[in-house]
Amino acid sequence: MYRDRIGLKSLWAKVVSPEEAAMHIKDGMIVGMSGFTRAGDAKVVPMALAERAKRDGLKITLMTGASLGSDVDKTLAEAHALSRRLPFQADPVLRASINAGEVMFVDQHLSQTVELLRSRQMGPVDVAVIEAVAIDESGALIPTTSVGNSATFALLADKIIVELNLTQSLDLIGLHDIYIPSRRPHREPIPIVRPDDRIGMTTIPIDPSRIAAIVVTEKLDSSASVQPPDLETKQIAGHLIDFLRAERNAGRMGSSLAPLQAGIGSIANAVLHGFIDSDFHDLTMYSEVLQDSTFDLMDAGKLLFASGSSITLSPEKHRYVLNNISKYKSRLVLRPQEISNHPEVIRRLGIIAINTALEADIYGNVNSTHVLGTKMMNGIGGSGDFARNSQLAVFVTKSLAKGGDISSIVPMASHVDHTEHDVDVLITEQGLADLRGLAPRERSKLIIENCVHPIYRDALRDYVREAEALGGHTPHVLSKALSWHMAVQERGSMRPVEPKAAE
Amino acid sequence: MYRDRIGLKSLWAKVVSPEEAAMHIKDGMIVGMSGFTRAGDAKVVPMALAERAKRDGLKITLMTGASLGSDVDKTLAEAHALSRRLPFQADPVLRASINAGEVMFVDQHLSQTVELLRSRQMGPVDVAVIEAVAIDESGALIPTTSVGNSATFALLADKIIVELNLTQSLDLIGLHDIYIPSRRPHREPIPIVRPDDRIGMTTIPIDPSRIAAIVVTEKLDSSASVQPPDLETKQIAGHLIDFLRAERNAGRMGSSLAPLQAGIGSIANAVLHGFIDSDFHDLTMYSEVLQDSTFDLMDAGKLLFASGSSITLSPEKHRYVLNNISKYKSRLVLRPQEISNHPEVIRRLGIIAINTALEADIYGNVNSTHVLGTKMMNGIGGSGDFARNSQLAVFVTKSLAKGGDISSIVPMASHVDHTEHDVDVLITEQGLADLRGLAPRERSKLIIENCVHPIYRDALRDYVREAEALGGHTPHVLSKALSWHMAVQERGSMRPVEPKAAE
Repeated sequence: MYRDRIGLKSLWAKVVSPEEAAMHIKDGMIVGMSGFTRAGDAKVVPMALAERAKRDGLKITLMTGASLGSDVDKTLAEAHALSRRLPFQADPVLRASINAGEVMFVDQHLSQTVELLRSRQMGPVDVAVIEAVAIDESGALIPTTSVGNSATFALLADKIIVELNLTQSLDLIGLHDIYIPSRRPHREPIPIVRPDDRIGMTTIPIDPSRIAAIVVTEKLDSSASVQPPDLETKQIAGHLIDFLRAERNAGRMGSSLAPLQAGIGSIANAVLHGFIDSDFHDLTMYSEVLQDSTFDLMDAGKLLFASGSSITLSPEKHRYVLNNISKYKSRLVLRPQEISNHPEVIRRLGIIAINTALEADIYGNVNSTHVLGTKMMNGIGGSGDFARNSQLAVFVTKSLAKGGDISSIVPMASHVDHTEHDVDVLITEQGLADLRGLAPRERSKLIIENCVHPIYRDALRDYVREAEALGGHTPHVLSKALSWHMAVQERGSMRPVEPKAAE
Repeated sequence: MYRDRIGLKSLWAKVVSPEEAAMHIKDGMIVGMSGFTRAGDAKVVPMALAERAKRDGLKITLMTGASLGSDVDKTLAEAHALSRRLPFQADPVLRASINAGEVMFVDQHLSQTVELLRSRQMGPVDVAVIEAVAIDESGALIPTTSVGNSATFALLADKIIVELNLTQSLDLIGLHDIYIPSRRPHREPIPIVRPDDRIGMTTIPIDPSRIAAIVVTEKLDSSASVQPPDLETKQIAGHLIDFLRAERNAGRMGSSLAPLQAGIGSIANAVLHGFIDSDFHDLTMYSEVLQDSTFDLMDAGKLLFASGSSITLSPEKHRYVLNNISKYKSRLVLRPQEISNHPEVIRRLGIIAINTALEADIYGNVNSTHVLGTKMMNGIGGSGDFARNSQLAVFVTKSLAKGGDISSIVPMASHVDHTEHDVDVLITEQGLADLRGLAPRERSKLIIENCVHPIYRDALRDYVREAEALGGHTPHVLSKALSWHMAVQERGSMRPVEPKAAE
């Protein structure tokens, strides 16, 4: 009975098929869709659009919160329906189209997309496609498992298509906190001073006359593909816990630390799990994505409150949490990603930010996005919003990749997303490098001795020795700086061919 | 009659010679000194300290606001008195010591130093040496031509040495606005919503019992070494004005634009001068350093108000402005650099940030600090605070350096301080590249065609062609990515040796 979920009865007549709804989207349009890390994404209208694109050759600019599930990016990419995509993605097929230069991908800090739209430096938004759990009597939208950029997309779009998802629990109502900063030059401070502050409305207030179509669906969110903790991610978590314990013992933090942020993915999830058996307590999170670990920490009595922009869970956890959402609701809030990732709030709260590095260099510059400096993986996401403005910016990575053929620590990062200015602590399963207050020549020693895998340590020591003989604040041998990446291109491995590579 | 300037009479007995005052500084101490871009720096105690260091071999960690004048950094470096220096410097002798690995230089975002001290991730501050125009009846300090990090240094230091500078006009009293964010987790929003908001006190309130010594000086601030606008910097200014006019005509901004920030140096100064003959009016600044151009814009009736952290002027301008400071005072405020550069305020106000690039690459990554990827020039300063959080991040550079032997635009930046995510507009005398909403493959074409000097355009077009054939979101030929820098190391020039270099 979907009509129960449309409080404004005049909208009942707007219910159409996905195909009919998708007809509002024309070739060349800029479309904003809900969805943040596989949660709360528009699921059926984009599929109908892809079908039409295959038939008619249509192309759009697609903006979302972050990555999508439900094979939406895959299907649209296969249908060649995307000319431009932003601000984040994580789909292998779309990734290939991006790397082939077919889709123009704009890799943005997740807090910034709506600022560019609001100031009309990008846009206009022609159509917004927003998944909702319900529409209230005023026509306002109630989002589902993510907020992402949905509120601003809906507020700015000429037309709105609502995907009313009957599988999403009505208990989600009240979970969201929709706050949109006022327009400059009259913008006021964002009044969040604690992670659990609620500052906005529980709905996205829109003019219902802009709702062009409503589609009813029963498609579930895709579940997360996070790996369970393994030996190495547990070691990484252990190093972080030890470090934070030392910070506490030095009087720099209390036993509830500061609000935690953790990026998406298996390593960050494992690191959060590491807090379960620690002696920290009364923790809070001010993060983007709430993963399994968030709820495990709550169940373990460690986590008081979590603020995020989406809930992305494994299949079992998904079933349990969404069926018992009322149990967690008083300790959760979902915010627009502009607010979850806002520099103002992150700096004020003094977040501990834990994000994953794809590679790092011996000076602590971090590449989060580009394989061998050229091929896009997913995107920078919120890592920059958090790392730059946090009290403590931690990056984690396993020291090796591809069975040891790749060292995650290289002489010079082949692409830089986070500069050495923004990286406080680097952790691998080998150990932790506390880079705070250190100069590059000090950072390199610490990173090599503490974080690099033993099979690559000698080669990096040799590189540093040769580079320092040439001088400079950040010594490099330019002819060898990218040679490790070239070795992968040429022979599939960074492993030294002779006992010492850097001769 | 310096006693007029010490309102708290019990402090009169603290007046000593610079040599005596410097005795409070011991080997191994962490010392915070006033000074931001040659303005308001401690001038005589550091000189006495250098003398002692030459004799006794003492070494300290020196923190300041930003760069110093009066040859302080030079003299301390020559005396081998510095083991560590942060967060910025601009002295050739110190630079050589840094690049030789003798002084450990910690290159920080200027807004962040005091956060690290306050949370005890760096420090403690043993001694603060602060230039003051006066000390009031309560013992509070009144800074001179800069605030920088002085307030937090003074609040945190075990001992304070005051350099009472009689050449600094008493009319400076009331110019400053000292606001220190409260400690986390009880930190409140910073209540600045317009550049002219005053939110703090006009003095630095300290416990006068911590004043260990007062030194009386009559040394003038060093004047700025900014070059007057030349043909190329005028062309850069012209491109920016044209662009902003188009933004206004597109309805994205009004004729007063948004608050302006301009980095230090000749190009940024010239760019600001470009507004004098424009049709923009009622401008405001929310910047770090107020240079000659700030006062020229005020005198021309273009600029309503300027907020900064220091005033650094040419000799003539210095005489005129400081002798007539009361004329400007109602339209000026000097803030702690933490506040002038605060992400929260910069994002809220929607600053237009104009900073100088040392080099940029074809994808819009910017190097602000490292010559040929290794040798430190000055430091990142506030450019990251502003570029990341601004509404519009503009980077300016002449397209050529060293008489044409160096192209400021290269295939791959040899060091990255500002990632492509944070660079909206790149301008050289050749033209402007509007990079907003574009993917790397689009950015490269625009930058090459609009910004690169004609003598390097073909070589970069060839590079892009070869790189794109290899694929990737950000195409590169790794074996050639740094070859332009290697050519400078090997033969002093990036100029193609054959008609086409990238074969």
